Amino acid sequence: MSNPDSGSPPGNVGLVEPKSFHHPEPFTLQCGVTLPSYELIYETYGTLNADKSNAILICHALSGHHHAAGVHSADDAKPGWWDTAIGPGKPIDTNRFFVISLNNLGGCHGSTGPQSVDPATGKPYGPDFPNVVVRDWVNSQAALADHLGIGRFAAIVGGSLGGMQALQWAIDYPNRVKAAVVIAAAAKLSAQNIAFNEIARQAITSDPNYLEGRYADENSIPDKGLGLARMIGHVTYLSDDGMGEKFGRELKSGDLGRGSDVEFQVESYLHHQGQSFSRIFDANTYVLMTRALDYFDPARESNDNLVNAFESATASFLVVSFTTDWRFSVARSKEIVDALIAARKNVASAVIESVHGHDSFLLPLSRYHEVLRSYLARIADEVGS
Amino acid sequence: MSNPDSGSPPGNVGLVEPKSFHHPEPFTLQCGVTLPSYELIYETYGTLNADKSNAILICHALSGHHHAAGVHSADDAKPGWWDTAIGPGKPIDTNRFFVISLNNLGGCHGSTGPQSVDPATGKPYGPDFPNVVVRDWVNSQAALADHLGIGRFAAIVGGSLGGMQALQWAIDYPNRVKAAVVIAAAAKLSAQNIAFNEIARQAITSDPNYLEGRYADENSIPDKGLGLARMIGHVTYLSDDGMGEKFGRELKSGDLGRGSDVEFQVESYLHHQGQSFSRIFDANTYVLMTRALDYFDPARESNDNLVNAFESATASFLVVSFTTDWRFSVARSKEIVDALIAARKNVASAVIESVHGHDSFLLPLSRYHEVLRSYLARIADEVGS
Repeated sequence: MSNPDSGSPPGNVGLVEPKSFHHPEPFTLQCGVTLPSYELIYETYGTLNADKSNAILICHALSGHHHAAGVHSADDAKPGWWDTAIGPGKPIDTNRFFVISLNNLGGCHGSTGPQSVDPATGKPYGPDFPNVVVRDWVNSQAALADHLGIGRFAAIVGGSLGGMQALQWAIDYPNRVKAAVVIAAAAKLSAQNIAFNEIARQAITSDPNYLEGRYADENSIPDKGLGLARMIGHVTYLSDDGMGEKFGRELKSGDLGRGSDVEFQVESYLHHQGQSFSRIFDANTYVLMTRALDYFDPARESNDNLVNAFESATASFLVVSFTTDWRFSVARSKEIVDALIAARKNVASAVIESVHGHDSFLLPLSRYHEVLRSYLARIADEVGS
Repeated sequence: MSNPDSGSPPGNVGLVEPKSFHHPEPFTLQCGVTLPSYELIYETYGTLNADKSNAILICHALSGHHHAAGVHSADDAKPGWWDTAIGPGKPIDTNRFFVISLNNLGGCHGSTGPQSVDPATGKPYGPDFPNVVVRDWVNSQAALADHLGIGRFAAIVGGSLGGMQALQWAIDYPNRVKAAVVIAAAAKLSAQNIAFNEIARQAITSDPNYLEGRYADENSIPDKGLGLARMIGHVTYLSDDGMGEKFGRELKSGDLGRGSDVEFQVESYLHHQGQSFSRIFDANTYVLMTRALDYFDPARESNDNLVNAFESATASFLVVSFTTDWRFSVARSKEIVDALIAARKNVASAVIESVHGHDSFLLPLSRYHEVLRSYLARIADEVGS
């Protein structure tokens, strides 16, 4: 049934409080290492219906976290990172769906990760936190779903690295995913993608404050390296045209004709991006997350045949890409769509015109939001929420 | 007249010896600083004809130098950086042309630059070497031409930053340039281009061995920062497809499924590129050259009107671009061509299919070389060499 509020203007989810899920059992990662237990920090928005059929899981990207919507206090100036998309009457409509957003294992926003204390040593894991791959995230998220009593998600939704989690869910837990919404993602990274990630890791690990990853033990922060890594990422998330529209060649200082002490606006912007990121993100987590991106390659287990990799999936798929995204281009989404079609899956796709590059997936672009809204509204109808 | 040797297979220029040009007079740069004198190291290939009308000037790119063709000793395994294009019977045919290739002012291969001793202090200039812009290079090259008795070049040829010098020559010295060959260049950098350059500079200057540019005084080398800068540059000079063809997702070590200690071939390649570059290039020069790239913007003096900027030019132009070059894309060359057409100049252009990105301009791609060859053969005919 359609919600009586759906005609009113979209609202916000308001005050939210993060919760913590403690997984008390040992949890073995794909790399062979067993964590004795783990915590996941998460938030929920909306109400789980009686038959628990209206849950949507939001999977975050490289630098994301659990706080996707709403605010943490009445005077919180900054809402969650996807507040434009999640809320009452918004594309991911909390009047109809129960939305779960978590910080992934290995993260630095409250879930067990490199900053957590290793019970074996009494000190932070730091660089010894084991490698985590997308499948590990999906498995740990499935345990969270068990904890919440959710057998089957109405949808798993994610952009970029989050889209990879949605794909892996559909492959690994076909009975637990009704729809997978895969936005600005790729079935695997290209050599160029890996190269940019490796340069970011090199920037971090060659910062003298990195101390082979043990910076926390010495009250040190590899802020310059992490800042550089973020700048590299940031440039690749934007499009050339988008940056041109935003900054052009505007000067912040200096005289171009004389070439003396010139600073362009785009330089100043990048410095700010790098510095503020390095204050809020953990360097070991950045290394871990980029590696998870590099390693993602579900076709590899099927002889590099993506069609076969999708064989187990029963979900319906929505695949969305953006015209100026050169990090995960339209062609990469088309590879996913083509493989899903060849595997005879239920797949819808949309290519959204946007000047904003890879970052488009975070923005409230009207056609993009309409596509999400109408796709998810049909899912809501089908699950009767 | 056409050369009798032109039917024989292309040969090499053989042994070459760098020469040095000492400019004994004070030389005032656009930034207002005056160098008391300067040296330019250069090489020549072929023979200057009687009326000195067959000279071609090769302008190098960011990391280039004077050694463009031939070898420095009989057992020299590595010929000059553009040996495939310069030589008897090659596209830049030394049977017909007298070719001059120099290391630019501010360089690190023998011309006056940050590694040179500042006569005022008796120590290397290091970071105090003044900012140099493309116009300064052109002025210093014009003094070298005077020294060699060359009033007018048959052609000024350059790729990337070299192409910018060819454009500036045509604008500043219309009577001294018969043809400007502008390859894989742009009339100005985009915000994205500047951003990548700034990240490279940040990588260098945040290396603790950089010592605010005074590393030479302390026998230190900011090799990690310079290596990172090179890796960033390198990835942007290649195309996504080209890197995919070359490396794919081939592993050098590790187990992707388990995600443990995986190294991809492309990572190992980048490490090698970064390390070997940091052994042969000077960090202060890298900073200086990237700034010259950023500052280049000949239209700025003409109210941002590129058509007007070209008004003074009398040269004929050849503008070449490569389909997968995303650093200086085909569209950027088209801007140059369109402005030249609007300014009613003599302009030819070619877009070359290539998978090799920006680096294509250094490669012996057959259609590219045929375009160069036929264009320059006509110039040779016209100057009667």
